[in-house]
Parts: sequence; structure tokens; C-alpha cells
Amino acid sequence: MDLLSFADYAGTCAFAISGTISATQKKLDLFGATFIGFVTAIGGGTIRDLMLGNTPVTWILDSKYFILILASILFTLVFYKYILKLKQTLFLFDTIGIGVFTIIGIEKALFFGINAPISMVMGLSSAVIGGVIRDTLCNDVPLIFHKEIYATACIIGGSVYLVLQHFNVETHFSQIATISSIIIIRLLAIKYNLSLPKITNAQE
Amino acid sequence: MDLLSFADYAGTCAFAISGTISATQKKLDLFGATFIGFVTAIGGGTIRDLMLGNTPVTWILDSKYFILILASILFTLVFYKYILKLKQTLFLFDTIGIGVFTIIGIEKALFFGINAPISMVMGLSSAVIGGVIRDTLCNDVPLIFHKEIYATACIIGGSVYLVLQHFNVETHFSQIATISSIIIIRLLAIKYNLSLPKITNAQE
Amino acid sequence: MDLLSFADYAGTCAFAISGTISATQKKLDLFGATFIGFVTAIGGGTIRDLMLGNTPVTWILDSKYFILILASILFTLVFYKYILKLKQTLFLFDTIGIGVFTIIGIEKALFFGINAPISMVMGLSSAVIGGVIRDTLCNDVPLIFHKEIYATACIIGGSVYLVLQHFNVETHFSQIATISSIIIIRLLAIKYNLSLPKITNAQE
Repeated sequence: MDLLSFADYAGTCAFAISGTISATQKKLDLFGATFIGFVTAIGGGTIRDLMLGNTPVTWILDSKYFILILASILFTLVFYKYILKLKQTLFLFDTIGIGVFTIIGIEKALFFGINAPISMVMGLSSAVIGGVIRDTLCNDVPLIFHKEIYATACIIGGSVYLVLQHFNVETHFSQIATISSIIIIRLLAIKYNLSLPKITNAQE
Repeated sequence: MDLLSFADYAGTCAFAISGTISATQKKLDLFGATFIGFVTAIGGGTIRDLMLGNTPVTWILDSKYFILILASILFTLVFYKYILKLKQTLFLFDTIGIGVFTIIGIEKALFFGINAPISMVMGLSSAVIGGVIRDTLCNDVPLIFHKEIYATACIIGGSVYLVLQHFNVETHFSQIATISSIIIIRLLAIKYNLSLPKITNAQE
Repeated sequence: MDLLSFADYAGTCAFAISGTISATQKKLDLFGATFIGFVTAIGGGTIRDLMLGNTPVTWILDSKYFILILASILFTLVFYKYILKLKQTLFLFDTIGIGVFTIIGIEKALFFGINAPISMVMGLSSAVIGGVIRDTLCNDVPLIFHKEIYATACIIGGSVYLVLQHFNVETHFSQIATISSIIIIRLLAIKYNLSLPKITNAQE
């Protein structure tokens, strides 16, 4: 298994865990929590695959996703108390997750002959739409619409990737540089409490 | 028309009725109620078809769905008072509906060469996603995430079906056994007030 | 560029602007507002394309949509104060937008061999689903489910189009007649304060 595949599975697990944790704050039952964990993990990649016409979608064909997601959800429900203490580990996994999903989304779109800017949108969709569906199903306005530097990190990371690939930099190096830049941006954003400008009527 | 097709149309009508009834509790207008009724009826099958790559999706190609759904919605709006009194009939139709949708989802996925566990997920998606979309559009957390034994009944029924098919039991018998087991589970759940364990932070 | 293409791009811009304006009322950040503007503009056409199996979806293959949408969103965020004063212009653009999206949805569906009534549903989906997704993401019950003659105008306009096409009326004329009838219906609805009947339990 190559580096990217491994990171893809790790990212999927991280997303399943984050979805399940969200669900525990909503008084859902076992099925509800499992559904939310599942959709958070596969939502972004599924929407990307559907829009590209890459069907049956990836997780349907490769059962490893299904097994890893169910295991992550079960793990989260059982070791809930301990997982919440591992905030930094979770943050790292989640950030690796969005980095990997961004790269995979871009790669798939380029493979389908899509141009660079739209490929970037596909990368971004892979990374963020799972969380958007999670929050919408939980009846919240999606977190990434009003908090944190999250999508921005994907966009910058994705740009790094496209530029490095354009100059024929070795792929593994590009991947590591992309994910590193996303991690650094999110760490800086948290350290210096950065966020995007709010858009409100109040600006009038 | 074979038994399964007949039950599929009956289930679709039951879902259209349940969607329309939900809509009447939300102060929507005629279009809103129709939209919700429609999406409840075709939502699960549509998402299943999209993920499998089975496009144009079923209801677009077979106009009988469209006609039956519109008729069910109209019927519901006109005879609203009387339908609410038929709770047990509605419950029976709805339960037959999820049973049939589970079987059809599994069958379609198997036909596309998908393995048994993921086919089960496709069966479950067919049965429950219409209701998830209905509740999300009505701005509620989906009912099946926190109430009733519903998805659980589909999962057990679907397992019954897959096991019987695995042992080459005659198909009609498998279908009837599946739907019967789903009906029995839901009746038992209501009679004994069973529900899945809640997942909350309070478990800490 | 023919008339319909031009109107399609104009309608897309109108939808991006209306989505962005909605977002400004929700305390979202720059990314959230952009996401909502984007999804409002491409949501209906994307769902239509997915259900028809017309993938990769239109906006992925034709970058002009992407560029126009981003420009519209930026324009809206910068000139917010002035745009809100142009209510009538916005209303006109939006109405042209739904008219064009209705026609394009119908045309695409007919091209895929779909019959007239279901093609109408595809036209309607193209026109209204972007707004439904916008409101759902903003955690509101979709506006068109309880306010305004909106979908009704599309249905009547779409019927006009199908009838004129059935009698082999020249296509440009049919298109103009369709969009004009939608504009007239919406203007009349506003002038005489028309709306669809509310569907509520209170009718009992």
C-alpha cells in the first residue's frame, strides 16, 4: 500500500470519528450516530465521484472503507471518554484527512481530464462536504461556514500541490508538502486565532 | 406484474403519503407539501441509483412512479382527516414499503456486482434516505436518528434475505420472509416500547 | 453565443447573487458565503444532470460557469449596499434565471429521451433545487415551500414551452414566450399578493 492510500484510510477513520463525536452531542441513538459517522467519512468523496461520473462510487467498490468506518465508529462509541482527551491526535488525523482528501480529489479530477481550477474545487469538495452534510443532518449551520480556517487551508494546500505538479516536482514530495502546508496553516490559525472575515449586513 | 413490483408501487405510495402528512405539520403551501411528498417517495431509491451509477434513475424512466406519487399526494391532501384515522393501515403500508425497498436495494446492488455487506447498505439506503431528506428539508433532525426501531428492522430483514438467498431458498419465499420479519420486529418494538440505546455525552 | 446560452449565464449569475445575499443574513464567513452562492447557482443543474446521468456535470466541463459565479459572488460582497437597492433588477434577473433553467432542464431531459411530464419535473428541478439547498444549508425551511408563486410560475411556463414545442412553434419564439409568461405570472402574483393555499392540520 502506498503512502497516499494509507493516508486516505487514516483520513477516512478520522472523519468517521469526528462525525460520531458530533452525533454524541445531539442525543441520537446508535443508528443515528452510526449514520452520521458514516456520512461524514464518505460524503465528500461520494459527491465528488457523482459529479465526475465515477460510479459506482469508490467506497462501494472497496470494502476496506466500510470496515474501517464501522470500526472507527464502534471504537469512538466505546472509548469516547479517552478519545476526547486525545484532542491533538484527533486534530492531526483530521488535518491529514483533509489534506489527503484534497489531493485525491484533485488527482481524480485531473484523471477525468478536468482543468486545474475545477480540479481544485473537486479537491475542496472531497475534503469539506462530508462535514457540511454532517452538520446539516444535525440541524446546524455547517461549522466551516462560520468558524476556523479550514477550507482556506485546503485551498492553499491544493494550490501548493497544483503548482508543484505543474513544475514536475516528484509526486511523493508534492504530497508531503501539501499536507504539511495544510497542517501548518491550521496550527498557525489556531495559535494566532485567525479566521476569515465575517460577511454580514452589519457591514452596511 | 410480479409481487415485488406491486409491493414496490405500494411502498412508494405509502412513502408519498407519509411525506405529505409530515409536510402538513409544517405550514407549507401546496407546492411545498407536494415536493416533500415526492422527495420522501423517491429519495432513497434515487440516492441508491446515483451511487450505483444506475442512471437515468428509476423513477425518471418509469412514469408509473410519478403518476402514483402525485395521486397519493393529492389523495392525502383531500382525505387528510380520514387518513389520520387509518394509522394502522398506514403503518402496515409503510412497513411493507421499507421491506420492499430494502429487498430492491439489495437486489440492484447484487446485480451491479456489489458484495453482500455493501448491498445491505444499499438496501438500507433505499429504505431510509427518503425519510432523512424529508426531515432535513422540514428542518428537523431525522426521526430515525433518535426514535423507533426502524433502520434496525431493515438491517435484520435484509440479513434474513441475504442468508435465505445464500442458501438458495426460493425467491418469493425469501421476499415474504424478509417483509414479515420487518413487520414483526416493528410490531414488537412498538408493543414493548423498544428503542436503540441513546448515545450522549451523559455517558461519561 | 445564442440567446439561450446568454440567458443561462445571466441566470447563473442571478442565482449566485441571490445565494450570496442570503448568506449575508446568516453571519457566515467569506468561505461560507462563497459556498452558498456557488451551490445556489449550480445546485439545480447539478441534481438534474446527476439524475439524468449526464456526467461530468455541466459546470465542471464548462469553466465559464465557475468564473462567472466567482465574479458574481465577489461583486455581491463588494457592492452589497448598492445591489440591495436594485431589487427590481435582481427580481428580473432571477425570474429570467428560473425561466431559462426550466427550459434547459426540459430540453436536456427530452434529449435523453425522457417523456414530457418527467421532462417538466427535470425543468422544475433545475430551476428550484439550488434555492432549496441554499435554504437548507442556512438552516431554514426552503422559502419556496411556503412563500411566493415561484415553482408554480415554472410549471406554467414549462407547460407553455412544451405545448408550443408540440405544435412545432419556432424555438426562439417558444423560449421568449416561456420566459415572458413566467415573468408575467410572478409580477401578477406580487401585484395581487397571490400565493398557493397553505396546507396545515388546521384544515381539520
